[in-house]
This record gives sequence, C-alpha cells and structure tokens, in this order.
Amino acid sequence: MAPTKAPDSSRRSDRSRRAILDAALALVTEVGYRRTTIEGIAARAGVGKQTIYRWWPSKAAVLMDAFLDLAGRSAEGVAAGSESAEGVAAESESAGEPDEGEQAPGIPDTGDLVADLKLVLRATVDELNDPVLEAPTRALTAEGIVDAKLGAAFVHKLLDPQLALYVTRLRAAQEAGDVRADVDPRIALELLIGPLMHRWLLRTLPLTHAYADEIVEYAVGGLAPRP
Amino acid sequence: MAPTKAPDSSRRSDRSRRAILDAALALVTEVGYRRTTIEGIAARAGVGKQTIYRWWPSKAAVLMDAFLDLAGRSAEGVAAGSESAEGVAAESESAGEPDEGEQAPGIPDTGDLVADLKLVLRATVDELNDPVLEAPTRALTAEGIVDAKLGAAFVHKLLDPQLALYVTRLRAAQEAGDVRADVDPRIALELLIGPLMHRWLLRTLPLTHAYADEIVEYAVGGLAPRP
Repeated sequence: MAPTKAPDSSRRSDRSRRAILDAALALVTEVGYRRTTIEGIAARAGVGKQTIYRWWPSKAAVLMDAFLDLAGRSAEGVAAGSESAEGVAAESESAGEPDEGEQAPGIPDTGDLVADLKLVLRATVDELNDPVLEAPTRALTAEGIVDAKLGAAFVHKLLDPQLALYVTRLRAAQEAGDVRADVDPRIALELLIGPLMHRWLLRTLPLTHAYADEIVEYAVGGLAPRP
Repeated sequence: MAPTKAPDSSRRSDRSRRAILDAALALVTEVGYRRTTIEGIAARAGVGKQTIYRWWPSKAAVLMDAFLDLAGRSAEGVAAGSESAEGVAAESESAGEPDEGEQAPGIPDTGDLVADLKLVLRATVDELNDPVLEAPTRALTAEGIVDAKLGAAFVHKLLDPQLALYVTRLRAAQEAGDVRADVDPRIALELLIGPLMHRWLLRTLPLTHAYADEIVEYAVGGLAPRP
C-alpha cells in the first residue's frame, strides 16, 4: 500500500517524507483522525497534495506509516535508553526473530517464562503511558473501532506482528514444559495483552508495572502444567 | 447529571423522552458520536431543543442515558429469551445485588465457578455480537478512548457496576476456597473481561462461546489454590 522505502533517495525526498509523516502525526494528535485531511497534512508539511498522493493512496495509508515510523523510533529509544532491556535484547537475538527491522524486538527467552513476560509487559506499559505515543495511538485505535476496514489494517500491520512474538515465546514455553501442551498460544496471549489494553483504553485504573506483574503471575499460573 | 426518573409523569412526556433516546441512538449509529448534535436529535425526535435541555445538560448525557436504556432493555430481552439464563438468574437473587433495576443482573453462584463464569462470559459475547447494540457501543467506546471525560463517565455509569459483580463473585469463590486468598479480585476479573473486549474492539479474531470458555478455563486455573 505505502512505500516501505522512499521511492526517491535524494535528500530532498527524504526531507519531504519526514515532514509529511510528522505533519500527519501532529494533526491526528491535535484534531483527531476524522478531521485530519490530506490537504491539512500537505499545508503543514509545506508540500503539494500531489507529493503525498505520489507516495500514499489515502489518508489512512499516510497515518499508518506515520504511526509505524513513530512506534519504530520509540522502540529504538526504549532499547537505547534502558540497560536492562538492552541486556535481554542481546540474549534474545538467539531466538532469531526474522523482522529485526520492525518495531517489535522479540520476546526474550531466558528460560524463566514469568520473568520474560514481566519484562515485556512492563515495557508495553511504558509504551502505552508514553505521552508522545498516547494521543496518536488513541486516535488511530478509536477510529479502527468504528471503521472496520481501518481497524483491520491497523491489526494486520501493527498488532499481528507483535502478537506473533507471544505465540513464538509461548510455543517455546510449551516445549520447555512451562506451559501445558493443550493450551492454544494464540488464545493464551490474550490473557496477557487483553487486560493491559482494556485498562489503558478505558482508563479504568492506573496502568502500572505492578499491574503487569500481577497479570503475568495469574495468567502463567493458569497455563502451567497441572500437577 | 441526567434524570433517573422522567421528571414529568404524563404520557406525553414519556413519549417525548422515548423519542429523544431512540433518535439519539439512531444518530450515533448512523453518523458517529461527534457528528451527533442536540439539534439533530431534536429534529429527528420531533421535539424542540429546549425539551432536551430541560432534561439533559449535554449531548453526552443524552447519549449515556440512551445507551443505559438500550443496554437495560437488551439485558431484559436476554433474560426473557434464554431459559438457562433465567434458571440461574433465579438462583442468583440470593446473592442480593443491590442494583436490581440496572442492566447487570448479577453473576450466578451455583458453587461451580468455571460454569458460572462461562455462562456470564458467553452472555457477554452474545451482547457484544448483538447487531443492535454493536454500532452505538462502538461509537461510545471509541469516543471515550479519545475523550477522557466522556470515557470516565462511561466507565463510572456503565462499566464499573458490571465489574463490581465480578468482584462479588470472585470474593465468594475465595471464601469457598476456589480462588487463592492472595488474589486481588479487581485485577483477576480483568483476565476474564480484558481478552473479550480486546478481541471485540480490535476485531482480531471471531468472538465466540468457545473463546469465552477457553478464557475462563485458563484464567480460573491461574487463580485457583496451588496444590
């Protein structure tokens, strides 16, 4: 749908692309998804509408790329900023996740399922609470809830690649005997992700590391082999 | 905020109130939350704007009442239509939930925690998949995700009373020895509700009774006493 690489490698193209993505994010944060327009993005980025249409077929496509770009940069920032995350990221490379360039860096496999999941869910809590990511994530999620087509694109491009990492880690846990063989990893991961997203989306109660830890403890207890 | 009883008991008032609530729901379903206006509701209901402002202070208040009314009628329909739900509802009256007039009829306590939770989560699945409820629920939820004030009202009026029923049932399970004493029921319930809402909101995969059953099996396993 949208270009994965800038179609023109000149510095001017890169600058335009960067300006468009930044303008798209700023607008969706300020006025919401529906009131963001290609015209508005073009005006703010200082480019012509045709420049945008040359690279993206629709407003949804620009915003999706802007969001992927932001999430990717945020993940890099987290990885660069956090010593513990770096330590585990190094270890997790042996897990061999193929999409190393995507925003999802893989779930570590230290052999301690509870510890690995706590690390990942705590990082998710930090990401959801990140004020830079919050407004655009809410705007895009909210629109996906009422617009099934946009929602499907959102899930396909942003969410499914992350959920696949949980499936990989839970399968490894099944092989290691930490999770029952009859558990469906694609369902089990929702016990971890669902509560976090529910609390964040509906703002029922504060989303904290302590909450993430409890969710992992309860969920893993329900997936472990019965004695 | 909004009147809990019609302020004027005349038949004409009741008809106007009904027309306003129906118009509000129809509009939010058709054009979304933001483009629904008090003017539009008044025009569609065939009443003057002042009639609406006499009873409700804002668009949000009308829509919240319209939604509470719809959810209440839907719950009555479910209770009247399902034999098994009726059978268990009768038993659950001994649990003595105070808000008998609200849409949440209470979670049964037959002594079988897994069976009771499956019954309730299956009913929730049916409600979320109900085509009459779906569009307005999505519209209101999506707006609450970007509008913190509306979201808080939504949680306070609609969600919290339902979550309180889970806390009650899980506390009873703790007393019966089916759930560990150190489990926090307010967190544990999110293992049940979070996955369902996540799947429904983001439409990741179909929301079915089989899914509800698996979630209950996994979650209750994680809350049960360790042997």
